[in-house]
Amino acid sequence: MSELKVGLAGLGTVGAAVFRMLERRAGELEARTGRTVKVTAVAARDRSRDRGVDLSSVAWFEDPVALAREGDIDVFVELMGGDGDPAKAAVAAALDRGIPVVTANKALLAKCGVELARRAEASGAGLHFEAAVAGGIPIVKTLREALAGNAIERVSGILNGTCNYILTRMADEKLSFHVCLTEAQRLGYAEADPTFDIDGFDTAHKLAILTSLAFGTQVDADAIYVEGIRQLTLADLEAADDLGYRVKLLGVAVKTDTGIEQRVHPTMVPKHWPIAQVSGVTNAVAVDGDAVALTLVGPGAGGDATASAVVGDIFDVARGAKGYAFGLPVERLARAERAAMQRHEGGYYIRLAVVNKPGTAATITRRMADEQISLESIVQRQPGGVVPSDTAHVILITYATTEAAVRRAIAAIEADGVVASLPQVIRIEKD
Amino acid sequence: MSELKVGLAGLGTVGAAVFRMLERRAGELEARTGRTVKVTAVAARDRSRDRGVDLSSVAWFEDPVALAREGDIDVFVELMGGDGDPAKAAVAAALDRGIPVVTANKALLAKCGVELARRAEASGAGLHFEAAVAGGIPIVKTLREALAGNAIERVSGILNGTCNYILTRMADEKLSFHVCLTEAQRLGYAEADPTFDIDGFDTAHKLAILTSLAFGTQVDADAIYVEGIRQLTLADLEAADDLGYRVKLLGVAVKTDTGIEQRVHPTMVPKHWPIAQVSGVTNAVAVDGDAVALTLVGPGAGGDATASAVVGDIFDVARGAKGYAFGLPVERLARAERAAMQRHEGGYYIRLAVVNKPGTAATITRRMADEQISLESIVQRQPGGVVPSDTAHVILITYATTEAAVRRAIAAIEADGVVASLPQVIRIEKD
Repeated sequence: MSELKVGLAGLGTVGAAVFRMLERRAGELEARTGRTVKVTAVAARDRSRDRGVDLSSVAWFEDPVALAREGDIDVFVELMGGDGDPAKAAVAAALDRGIPVVTANKALLAKCGVELARRAEASGAGLHFEAAVAGGIPIVKTLREALAGNAIERVSGILNGTCNYILTRMADEKLSFHVCLTEAQRLGYAEADPTFDIDGFDTAHKLAILTSLAFGTQVDADAIYVEGIRQLTLADLEAADDLGYRVKLLGVAVKTDTGIEQRVHPTMVPKHWPIAQVSGVTNAVAVDGDAVALTLVGPGAGGDATASAVVGDIFDVARGAKGYAFGLPVERLARAERAAMQRHEGGYYIRLAVVNKPGTAATITRRMADEQISLESIVQRQPGGVVPSDTAHVILITYATTEAAVRRAIAAIEADGVVASLPQVIRIEKD
Repeated sequence: MSELKVGLAGLGTVGAAVFRMLERRAGELEARTGRTVKVTAVAARDRSRDRGVDLSSVAWFEDPVALAREGDIDVFVELMGGDGDPAKAAVAAALDRGIPVVTANKALLAKCGVELARRAEASGAGLHFEAAVAGGIPIVKTLREALAGNAIERVSGILNGTCNYILTRMADEKLSFHVCLTEAQRLGYAEADPTFDIDGFDTAHKLAILTSLAFGTQVDADAIYVEGIRQLTLADLEAADDLGYRVKLLGVAVKTDTGIEQRVHPTMVPKHWPIAQVSGVTNAVAVDGDAVALTLVGPGAGGDATASAVVGDIFDVARGAKGYAFGLPVERLARAERAAMQRHEGGYYIRLAVVNKPGTAATITRRMADEQISLESIVQRQPGGVVPSDTAHVILITYATTEAAVRRAIAAIEADGVVASLPQVIRIEKD
């Protein structure tokens, strides 16, 4: 029975969870693959730290690049994170040596995915990254393998647990964004500097990877339009609820007449969609193919969930599974074009804080008509404390139109002097 | 570039959809696997029938067993159905020849899965059956590959679209079981003889396969406790709704102290569970592992969805994916023991149509107390037309207890003479 020697770079929460899972499941993995899977070498900074795992029989490397380049290993597992060295150098070194790599590093893949896939192809080593997107949800395997018969039309997902936690608490408990953010930080769901999560960049990294797998494009996070959840108010979430929607931070990649549109922004989704009902830190990905539409729901982060995805990839390496990193040879991956959001077509939710005087509604509806925008509904509301009482909220839901038309109409309304503060615009996603 | 020659037995809705999908995706499949995937031989009964596909360059076999035994093919795709010959003989012949098999035939696998897996192992040919369970949902791949790092604790699913369609319409539109069944038949969601679907046997076939994959047991549909949805009334669904539950026909396999319990029955699930929100003919499978909990939602039937799963398997064959049919070598699969339902532990919904006289509630609660059953709630209701007006419904929700205790308590209440018609018992599934 041949051995699969695992080299593990990074022994934080996920690394230690992977180590323990491989020990716990050793017998099963051997029965299922015919190989004994064993961590034989690790790289981490502090040898003395107690991680709750027995490292006595394991070779220790201070330098992960040295482990990747010289370690007596059959697979290199990168769990250090960071989009530069040493993670990148280590992954490259392993691939160049022909050693398959398993990584959970979304930032690295979003930035250097194409280059690393090229190195993998050149040496014939596999590059596996199930854990990099949506944690424990097997969406990479689903797109790369299970849906091979489908032409994908849209991938959309709740890919950031922090944002979904905040939005869920705001909606369920009628709390402000800032209260929920503070609560998320207290519970360890958000960083002290939450920018990366709440401004949508983490979602964009993951979406870039999904887009490549779904549409055969080169991973390119810079091609994504990104908007975060900072500006969302409870008034918006309540209005969405009344109108039959929930507001989620979605990453969406969709095939349009002009190419693949990649975008991350708060989105109103119909309540009856499975994805609308995903609450808290849970993640979900919906895939619309020409033959099937699937929704996968599960934990997007955490040591055990991420370790589950990493060990699934190690299992694939052990049984000799072959395949291109992003499904296709690198030379076949098309360039990703930056989303032309002005051309985006869809329904819109627009909330305007307006001066409470006669003729305001007429002004607004005229400007919408000027841009050929049809309105599904228009509601005027007296808001609570947030806005001075001589203003009201006008909430518009449009039928499908273009971003450019919406922006022009709003600019015209602002020029008319009836708007009291910054308008809120939320895109609506429908079937 | 080597060719993968596909032999297709069965050219009904699914077979024709597979044929078209392989043509449509030929370029993609070649780019992704390095092989040209092409149907080179088919077996079907009526050569003259127009199936909307061009069979002119394809070898024609009247006999699927001859195709499997003698066809110049690299993979045998069985889409005939039926748990006996010719499907079984054809699959066996292909496997014995060392030719991998892709099948959508749940009945065959439920009955002969172990034998066929043994043949596959003996010759080294793969046996693939993603399409046999939950149609387009990649649950076989998820259990067999993605979750290899997890010890599975429970698998539960909505595995029959007919039943879920009926239950959804009953609950949403306040209709009777019989009206919804007739409607399902009219729309082609239910057969003229609906027994196989609505009495739970179809769900049991699929559950038997999932149990084997999740828990490493031998497929054995006879080990499953099966109850269908025929006896459910609108009153039950409405009471469930009031209590925060939905009623679904679930297949459940769960690890208990005494072994793997496999059961199919109407189940009350908390409304907030993703699986509770799955409506219409859609299927869903929830997997609870020790590291992750996932829910997968998608189409459980239909030509395109089934073809998607079949082509996903053909893709795996083309890229040379290896693995045991049920994850483990056959010799390692444990015997499945028949669920000892009397020992089942959980919460219960009990609806009793009782004689409307003083002391009835006292009788009922005393009998429950005699069996050490704690009640979470007890509600008395005056039902509409179904039951004569001198009776009332008493609805009990119990805390966790055993099936045996519930059955004994009900028998005692019946012996007390306060029950006007057959009691309704629905098991509750919780976290």
